[in-house]
Amino acid sequence: MSQFKPRVMSGARTTHQLHVGNYWGAIRNWIQLQDQYECFFGIMDLHGLTTAYKRAEEIKIYNRDIFADLIAWGIDPEKNTVFIQSMVPEHIELFMYFANLTPMGWLERVPTWKDAEEEAKASDTHNLGRFSYPVLQAADIAVYQGSLVPVGADQMAHLELTREIIRRFNHLYKGKLPEPKPLLTETPLIPGLDGRKMSKSYNNTIFLTEDEKTLKKKVNSMLTDSRRALRENPGVPEDCTVYAFHKLYSTPDDLKWVVEGCTTAGIGCGECKAKLCANMEAKTKIPREKKKELLNNPKTLDSIIEAGCEKARMEARKNLNTIKDWMKLR
Amino acid sequence: MSQFKPRVMSGARTTHQLHVGNYWGAIRNWIQLQDQYECFFGIMDLHGLTTAYKRAEEIKIYNRDIFADLIAWGIDPEKNTVFIQSMVPEHIELFMYFANLTPMGWLERVPTWKDAEEEAKASDTHNLGRFSYPVLQAADIAVYQGSLVPVGADQMAHLELTREIIRRFNHLYKGKLPEPKPLLTETPLIPGLDGRKMSKSYNNTIFLTEDEKTLKKKVNSMLTDSRRALRENPGVPEDCTVYAFHKLYSTPDDLKWVVEGCTTAGIGCGECKAKLCANMEAKTKIPREKKKELLNNPKTLDSIIEAGCEKARMEARKNLNTIKDWMKLR
Repeated sequence: MSQFKPRVMSGARTTHQLHVGNYWGAIRNWIQLQDQYECFFGIMDLHGLTTAYKRAEEIKIYNRDIFADLIAWGIDPEKNTVFIQSMVPEHIELFMYFANLTPMGWLERVPTWKDAEEEAKASDTHNLGRFSYPVLQAADIAVYQGSLVPVGADQMAHLELTREIIRRFNHLYKGKLPEPKPLLTETPLIPGLDGRKMSKSYNNTIFLTEDEKTLKKKVNSMLTDSRRALRENPGVPEDCTVYAFHKLYSTPDDLKWVVEGCTTAGIGCGECKAKLCANMEAKTKIPREKKKELLNNPKTLDSIIEAGCEKARMEARKNLNTIKDWMKLR
Repeated sequence: MSQFKPRVMSGARTTHQLHVGNYWGAIRNWIQLQDQYECFFGIMDLHGLTTAYKRAEEIKIYNRDIFADLIAWGIDPEKNTVFIQSMVPEHIELFMYFANLTPMGWLERVPTWKDAEEEAKASDTHNLGRFSYPVLQAADIAVYQGSLVPVGADQMAHLELTREIIRRFNHLYKGKLPEPKPLLTETPLIPGLDGRKMSKSYNNTIFLTEDEKTLKKKVNSMLTDSRRALRENPGVPEDCTVYAFHKLYSTPDDLKWVVEGCTTAGIGCGECKAKLCANMEAKTKIPREKKKELLNNPKTLDSIIEAGCEKARMEARKNLNTIKDWMKLR
């Protein structure tokens, strides 16, 4: 299968609205990748359901919300193939074929499974769906013949299992699925409001498309360097959550102003937060309006979503047929 | 969902051509059930692939062969819904939803998995597909809202897991899937040519629609009671494979003739086998011709298969939509 541009496949798990951690960890890379590659971007609701199966009704809402966010922040649904995973049942069909050739041991050794076993039992997610997800992930990539997968340095192991499954498939059926290669991307660690990693489960997130009032409220609640308990005490920016965000949202001039002001106690944390808030708002305003417009015109949004899923399905169906030909199943 | 007739769901795993063991263990019951119930009969190739994934190309051929056998032996594809599992992807979609609410422990405790672990490792089938099959089985039944499942006395445990999954589904999503009940059917133990249980893996089968010459050859090779090493020694019919078949294929008069002849050494094993052969041939002749006709008219057969799968798909799609409504996924 000759492809002029290498083909990128990447997905965002549907469990909640996109937050700025998701943006800097994945979506911003997608925005850059779309100019260089043929891209498939999936809103992965089946993956979301493996842990969020008890609140399935939310997933449907987040699918739309994420789709609107992606477009609002600059993913072009014409240039790329943007889709919702469950609307392309070929993913699951290929999962089923891959499941047969995936030894249990490969899955039992996956660190995210092994290490989280106790926690999974406690949270009622020690289930077949969660156990199987690396095989679904392999299918997600192979069903588009994806050859490049953007990953952070800490996610290399996940891709290795996909590569193993695809290698075994190619070996058994004389197939020619590309072994996807990692496309190392920058994934800065985004702290949450409380200084821990930003995560929906810690309830410390700033949503990607927050309204101005909430954005202000959340920025004001950010944990700052404890050395600045008093206004006159200087602080260490590297120990401050607010500064971590400045590095993402502020100009070099502003950064300089923050560092000087903080280390000399020339500015207070309130001023520093107000500046961050203004800078975040400046980047958020236009996407927020665009997203609002999309959500206010459900028919337009629906037709964009349907077109994306249809485009994905056409490609997935074609590849699945090729895969079944290799297996001599058709 | 009001149904005038209770709905039966049953399937035959595609791993080989149907043999007479499959007939007496399942298909003959189906033939009887079709008059009393609304029946869904599946040719379960996805289940076949969980162990036969390395010879996928055979599965495609057996699907057709089994379909032709079913019709030839008296399953009415108009009155029932007869389909090939992989042609109804709704099974896999529902599998995926069920997988999320199936605790690993439920599957780890399945006796056929637990007891066969070492053998599975040796035969390269200690894989996710085989491990997951009880969940697919639950989906096979629920996707048609099947309320009755024909089972032999030794298969009650399998159905219990399906019932547990469906109960959990109903509990979580306030669903109304019927908890399928076992429909106890007669499943005589069919010996193979060598006296062990008839099984493709023992290479001791008589295919359901064997040609006359091969049928004769195979019947002649059947193990008889070792007491009759000499023609003049009397035997014990209950210790003879040939007699086990007579009980299925011969009239009371013939049975009497066998018992008297065998226990008094009045007949030889050759005569006894010739009688069995004639009786088996008498029951096989017409289905064999009907099957041949179907296989010789691939377009007709294809259109019957397609119509059956389409009928199944319509029903499965409708039920899956209801299921997704309960989950609030639509």
